[in-house]
Amino acid sequence: MISRPWLTIAAAALAWSAPAAASNASSESVASAPLPDAMRAQLAQEYDRVIAELIRITETPAPPFKEAERAALFAAMLRDAGLSDVTIDAEGNVLALRPGREDGPVFVVSAHLDTVFPEGTPITVRRDGDRLFAPGIGDDSLGLASILAWVRALEAAQVSTLHPVLFVGSVGEEGQGDLRGVRHLFTQGAYKDRIGAFLSIDNTDAGRIVHAAVGSRRYRLAFRGPGGHSYGAFGIVNPMAAMAETVRGLYAISVPREPRTTYAASVVSGGTSVNSIPDEILLEIDMRSRDPEALAQLEAQLLAAARAAVDGENAARSIRSGAIRLDPELIGDRPAGTTPENHPLVVRAMAASRTYGFEPRLDASSTDANIPMSLGIPALTIGSGAGGGRAHSVEEYLNIERERFLAGLSVGLALIMAHAEGEPTR
Amino acid sequence: MISRPWLTIAAAALAWSAPAAASNASSESVASAPLPDAMRAQLAQEYDRVIAELIRITETPAPPFKEAERAALFAAMLRDAGLSDVTIDAEGNVLALRPGREDGPVFVVSAHLDTVFPEGTPITVRRDGDRLFAPGIGDDSLGLASILAWVRALEAAQVSTLHPVLFVGSVGEEGQGDLRGVRHLFTQGAYKDRIGAFLSIDNTDAGRIVHAAVGSRRYRLAFRGPGGHSYGAFGIVNPMAAMAETVRGLYAISVPREPRTTYAASVVSGGTSVNSIPDEILLEIDMRSRDPEALAQLEAQLLAAARAAVDGENAARSIRSGAIRLDPELIGDRPAGTTPENHPLVVRAMAASRTYGFEPRLDASSTDANIPMSLGIPALTIGSGAGGGRAHSVEEYLNIERERFLAGLSVGLALIMAHAEGEPTR
Repeated sequence: MISRPWLTIAAAALAWSAPAAASNASSESVASAPLPDAMRAQLAQEYDRVIAELIRITETPAPPFKEAERAALFAAMLRDAGLSDVTIDAEGNVLALRPGREDGPVFVVSAHLDTVFPEGTPITVRRDGDRLFAPGIGDDSLGLASILAWVRALEAAQVSTLHPVLFVGSVGEEGQGDLRGVRHLFTQGAYKDRIGAFLSIDNTDAGRIVHAAVGSRRYRLAFRGPGGHSYGAFGIVNPMAAMAETVRGLYAISVPREPRTTYAASVVSGGTSVNSIPDEILLEIDMRSRDPEALAQLEAQLLAAARAAVDGENAARSIRSGAIRLDPELIGDRPAGTTPENHPLVVRAMAASRTYGFEPRLDASSTDANIPMSLGIPALTIGSGAGGGRAHSVEEYLNIERERFLAGLSVGLALIMAHAEGEPTR
Repeated sequence: MISRPWLTIAAAALAWSAPAAASNASSESVASAPLPDAMRAQLAQEYDRVIAELIRITETPAPPFKEAERAALFAAMLRDAGLSDVTIDAEGNVLALRPGREDGPVFVVSAHLDTVFPEGTPITVRRDGDRLFAPGIGDDSLGLASILAWVRALEAAQVSTLHPVLFVGSVGEEGQGDLRGVRHLFTQGAYKDRIGAFLSIDNTDAGRIVHAAVGSRRYRLAFRGPGGHSYGAFGIVNPMAAMAETVRGLYAISVPREPRTTYAASVVSGGTSVNSIPDEILLEIDMRSRDPEALAQLEAQLLAAARAAVDGENAARSIRSGAIRLDPELIGDRPAGTTPENHPLVVRAMAASRTYGFEPRLDASSTDANIPMSLGIPALTIGSGAGGGRAHSVEEYLNIERERFLAGLSVGLALIMAHAEGEPTR
């Protein structure tokens, strides 16, 4: 017989649109219940297959902006797992809808297709004891492989959920991708007005619950001027001086410690020869905060500092050959946001994590969940698996010790069952 | 019969070591005399050969630090021209000694072998009317071809000079070469203690008399620190901020207008990704002056500003992961100096230029002559030929209109005849 304690929270469905209405106690008491024995047994049977699929996904390259091959593979795998409504949207995201008992708000469960590794990076998974080594294996092939295992588990138990679940393989989560896949999902995709909650599987630690989105605004500031011979044209404006004054202005800004707000002048380049006044200097700036207002204020201060630096340089030296111009280009825009700690999605994730032996803790980061959080839609990013390390390096690795790995894999499925109100029918 | 007005200045030989002792009037009256008719006729006959050799030299590549092929060609051509004592020294300079009547101080007549163009730059000379186009054709293939023409003219007329003349093809005049060829000549070469005067042929304008050496000191300043994640490590020191403060300190320095003293922050690079605090920023600085003391003072101020910037950054932000270090590297060192306007070498050059229809004017620049000028040895750089343009670009060109070209070619030979006290013997 199957115990079904998760059914006791039918009332919490209301909590989707009214988080404060749910008591922490009731949410947690439900979500901390383990998966039904049959589903847990099904997951355990899946272990070898999950590892095999994980390797296959990892070895299918998905460089930034070139995720199509992995997207096609993931779509085919979702169909194999039992879903029939699988499509690839205009941005390149893989979308697979599993209908619910009601045609209400959709629960998105997503992992990202892209890696940080450029085209041509060698990717052969190497096993060493209980570790698999390969670029991107944990970030985020593991998320994709976890979704496949969960779909098969839901299908095997013929689980019926109250809410439709939309499984997604997203493009452009990393770096310059700037969350383009999930941004499309929420602003232009077919489901954009139907998404009630969002869960991103990204990271190898099933105890890490990312409920706050660190927002970022990134600029490439171009300082352009006439340039000239270092000796013959001495006295004319130099974009280097305007860049330097901008960096100085930025580093004089005081930012709040809480919510944590940061900046960095990170990349600079310009000039062609030591005996020339340069005609262009490019400066990249990263700014982050969990607080959208603090971030907006910092951005305004940066741009004001850059404009003042340019004006100051044009006043300090000759503009007879031309003046310095500032051309700011926004190269990164990840909105900030938070899902409240007492929201049922958070409470259930914490409980599911604890149930399978992890020590859940809340964290803030920049992930696909930034987009829904910034829109006020409940969203989280959680890990799967049994830990790993060296993400974003070619030495990336993943622990796959069987029992711990299955425990980590169970957390996400338990959360889906709880939050989408899943009910096995056999 | 040959007129020999240049013999009337035998007394001016004393002026080699005592410039003020020579009256301008006597020097000029001598040097303004034209070349003997036979030598002028010999030069005129040479026109086609000079152009042919100029093309051959130009099409023999001589990238920075890779002048050996052109050096071998130039050495062979000097032997063909009639000189027997032709060697290549340890630095790669071609040296060809033409003995004098006396074994006294040597008069060096030099042109540089190297170009600014990197290995693989296509170099085929193209003719368009009275212009030849090719990278390096004027800077400084023309100087080398001029020397060959002059040697043949001296040999044909069996000219005997009072002073030995050392013809040189020098390496490393351009950019990072940092005058290494002539520096070697004056500090380590076989003739280093015997050189009484130095004439560099470099430039296509026989009216430009460079009597002042603009000295330069060039630095690559490396600012190095721990680096870290732009968000996670916010608050630690950033080498970008130290670099910026250094640029600011440099641009706050007041320099003399006369003697002209200049600086430029010219090249900057550093940082690997927008979301990282960089661990290294490199900044290149060019400083120049005709006045060695002003240059030394400017250099001291720059280095003090950089040290203060680093100290300030280490005080302003956390050094928990490490402090910013400054590593200054001297990447260019061209000493300043001047040959007085009333020195016979200058006066004779002005006169010779005027004799052949040019409007001579004194100028300051950075050339091979910087080294002897800085050592107090009389030195000049003059042009040859009939003008040109776009030096240091692949569109470089040279005017070769016959009469004007021969007039320009005559200036240097007339100056050699006057200053080395040449006397035709047939």
